[in-house]
Amino acid sequence: MSAAEAYTRLVATLREHADLAAALRLLEWDQETFMPAGVLEDRARQIGLLAGILHERHIDPAFLDLVDDLAGRISELDDGQAVDVGQTKWHSDRARRLDTALIRERSALHAEAHGVWIGARRDDDFNVLAPFLERIVAIERRVAAAIDASRDAYDVLLEGYEPGMSVAQIEPIFCQLRDGLLPLVERLAAVTAKRPAPSALRGDFPVAAQRQFNRTVAARLGFDFAKGRLDEAAHPFSTSIGSDVRLTTRYDAGDLRYALYSTIHETGHGLYEQGLDAAPRGTPRGESCSLGVHESQSRLWENQVGRSEGFWRFLLPVARQFFPALTDTSLAAALLAVNEARPSLIRTESDEITYNLHIVLRYELERALVDGSLRVSDLPTAWHAKMRHYLGVVPDTDRDGVLQDVHWAGGAIGYFPTYTLGNLYAAQLVCTVERTLGPLDALLAAGEFDALLGWLRQHVHHLGQTYRAPELIRRATGEPASPQPLLEHLQRKLAFLESS
Amino acid sequence: MSAAEAYTRLVATLREHADLAAALRLLEWDQETFMPAGVLEDRARQIGLLAGILHERHIDPAFLDLVDDLAGRISELDDGQAVDVGQTKWHSDRARRLDTALIRERSALHAEAHGVWIGARRDDDFNVLAPFLERIVAIERRVAAAIDASRDAYDVLLEGYEPGMSVAQIEPIFCQLRDGLLPLVERLAAVTAKRPAPSALRGDFPVAAQRQFNRTVAARLGFDFAKGRLDEAAHPFSTSIGSDVRLTTRYDAGDLRYALYSTIHETGHGLYEQGLDAAPRGTPRGESCSLGVHESQSRLWENQVGRSEGFWRFLLPVARQFFPALTDTSLAAALLAVNEARPSLIRTESDEITYNLHIVLRYELERALVDGSLRVSDLPTAWHAKMRHYLGVVPDTDRDGVLQDVHWAGGAIGYFPTYTLGNLYAAQLVCTVERTLGPLDALLAAGEFDALLGWLRQHVHHLGQTYRAPELIRRATGEPASPQPLLEHLQRKLAFLESS
Repeated sequence: MSAAEAYTRLVATLREHADLAAALRLLEWDQETFMPAGVLEDRARQIGLLAGILHERHIDPAFLDLVDDLAGRISELDDGQAVDVGQTKWHSDRARRLDTALIRERSALHAEAHGVWIGARRDDDFNVLAPFLERIVAIERRVAAAIDASRDAYDVLLEGYEPGMSVAQIEPIFCQLRDGLLPLVERLAAVTAKRPAPSALRGDFPVAAQRQFNRTVAARLGFDFAKGRLDEAAHPFSTSIGSDVRLTTRYDAGDLRYALYSTIHETGHGLYEQGLDAAPRGTPRGESCSLGVHESQSRLWENQVGRSEGFWRFLLPVARQFFPALTDTSLAAALLAVNEARPSLIRTESDEITYNLHIVLRYELERALVDGSLRVSDLPTAWHAKMRHYLGVVPDTDRDGVLQDVHWAGGAIGYFPTYTLGNLYAAQLVCTVERTLGPLDALLAAGEFDALLGWLRQHVHHLGQTYRAPELIRRATGEPASPQPLLEHLQRKLAFLESS
Repeated sequence: MSAAEAYTRLVATLREHADLAAALRLLEWDQETFMPAGVLEDRARQIGLLAGILHERHIDPAFLDLVDDLAGRISELDDGQAVDVGQTKWHSDRARRLDTALIRERSALHAEAHGVWIGARRDDDFNVLAPFLERIVAIERRVAAAIDASRDAYDVLLEGYEPGMSVAQIEPIFCQLRDGLLPLVERLAAVTAKRPAPSALRGDFPVAAQRQFNRTVAARLGFDFAKGRLDEAAHPFSTSIGSDVRLTTRYDAGDLRYALYSTIHETGHGLYEQGLDAAPRGTPRGESCSLGVHESQSRLWENQVGRSEGFWRFLLPVARQFFPALTDTSLAAALLAVNEARPSLIRTESDEITYNLHIVLRYELERALVDGSLRVSDLPTAWHAKMRHYLGVVPDTDRDGVLQDVHWAGGAIGYFPTYTLGNLYAAQLVCTVERTLGPLDALLAAGEFDALLGWLRQHVHHLGQTYRAPELIRRATGEPASPQPLLEHLQRKLAFLESS
């Protein structure tokens, strides 16, 4: 078989994997949106079966041989084909180093720990979860050792979520970010201590009208409803069933911001998915680059666009068509409401300025858990100490502390940093866009989102996994990933709050 | 491996097949309900892949060996296990006799012919479809010969949809039914020639209120929304994703009957699915008996219950809570509106009295196509002649004639009779129920559906495929399938129309 023939066979196989993954994601999407409550057990079984079939295909010897064969004669392929083979080989190598018994043990542990976490959070009882976290840390160490015993375990776990990223790269970035944020948070606390939460955008916003409004916003930003949907879920998320991109949000009839910023965030994810190149469908070049880059797209639209003055010059008149009660709401009041910020306990409810300290805290703790310098039993104490130091607030309960996130109980260690990487990348991309297109504010105020979206399509979306995240960002912005643009953005935001 | 061990393994395998089929059905359900329009190509590929995986499993040699092994020592199993093995063996034998090339050729032909049928119907051009129908008849003959060359081809095709049924059984039933219906239709034409269509239940019925109303009706009849849904689709259908039963309907804001009778019909299907025994899940004993028995359940609730005076004594006050405009609608007017009947051209829009003549016509034509006594090119002429004879109306176009149904273009030959079998079974079951429970009208008027549903659960739903349809009906009613109860029911209906 020639290299060209082998490559053609590889693409056909990868496309079958992608179609199977799509069927699996429809089962998952439906579970979170429309599935009736009484059939959870059925659905878990259906999802388990499809995930198993997909895993068998990923480690099918004929597939792995094909990948190895192509990787051995990569010089016979063109650059794009070489990317597909290289990336597939990298993922396959990680998968094949984990034996089936380890994978089963890990899946069973995650499933059990997830149930335990729900109970532990409900009962505010960390001790119930602790033994499971110990086992999870131990098994993640074994996973990392199986993949590459010669490297730092956390590094191996991290690159599972953000290929190409390493502790050596993020450690200085996160330190610099933390040290830059601490004085901002101190100033923020001084500002917010003096005044109550803004009341604009709270009131009576009927959900039926909000549905129309949120759909309009997503469409105006560029989301293509001919190949996507916007539905409701308890925990908003987005997913792709092939080229069919499905967003979710959640409505609060008393607060317009709640659904709006979920919608804009998920629309950012959705625009990325809809901007992927269709030609290499199913291959790495046609798939998103990394979790961090994905998050950069959601954060860019949510924060850099969605909370800007320009955007609200555009949005407020649109919103008034759906909600006549906003007639008397001023631009300044709306802007203050969507930029509300104050040190708080819960990561998912926190604002732009404090958010990344929640992540730095988790990154530092999970690294220490993996390298053994922190014991699981000491987690709550360490959590409190860092909350006090970084944010000046301390939870009364573990429910509002170490038990608040599902990630660790689900085995996701090395995942949290991708959230902050997304924020960094977003700020850095916007800096570059403004050097090219001029200040975004004018474009946003005019409701012209095409130029920004076009730039992102060209420099990020369309490239898929052609470059890994650090290289993608370097090429798109001319600089390696850096906390500086994000810090400058947050300084401007703080100055706005101080002067409002 | 002991027979008990082999049986346990069979059940586990059948349950995996069922879970895969459930994932496939979710892809299909989603396509008809929520899928955005622009991703049809993706979905066709995903469905094709899962259908292929499921087919591979059905003809997997290890599975077939297991089935054969168990079938060879069926005396070592208990009665219920023997049913599961026997039915699985019967299905497997049919499947394995079709070679993969024939199945592929048939699937490709159906897919192509379906597209051609859409165009032919749109353009009212039978000649475009004719060569495809010729190929479809030829390939169905080959399928029948591959399964059992020693038997009548139509018999083999028919039992693929209604196992245990044969031409020898249905031919006298259908003749008797046809001959009993012809004088009724003549009398009906005399009644309807004299008066306009009734206007009750037409008017302004907002879709939002109809959604609530239809949901209420399904729930009152016994449909469990904790394990099911009611959504909207262009062509109402129902499906089961494991124990998760999904109904669809379609709303017409100008006519309350339109959605209501689709909902009741699909609720009938849904109650059957929800009434299957959960213990033998995935095995023949836990699956519905046949298409005819399935249709008997939908028709029983739609026609025998839903168009009865007792039911409307219950329903009219309920409907008035949703639609105050019905305050002045009398019971008599509503009953006349839901029993409107007149000879017409389109099967799916036809009434209870004329419906089965549409089926008899199709049965006679498809039998003649298969045995070679009718050529495809002569179909339109034969159609017109039978329409004139049976219903006294003739279509001006083939669009309203031979091109109206999708079945033949989709390769479904031998399917149509199951609709009429469903109507027969329904009337016969209701006769028996009334012998046991007394006249249904009183129970229905009181909104007490539990006794009827309980009887159906015990004598039909809970049995799954323990007996084949002819035996199931014989055991439930004490008689073999007969057209007499249906003819008597329709005579009473005609008498009501004549006296109204």
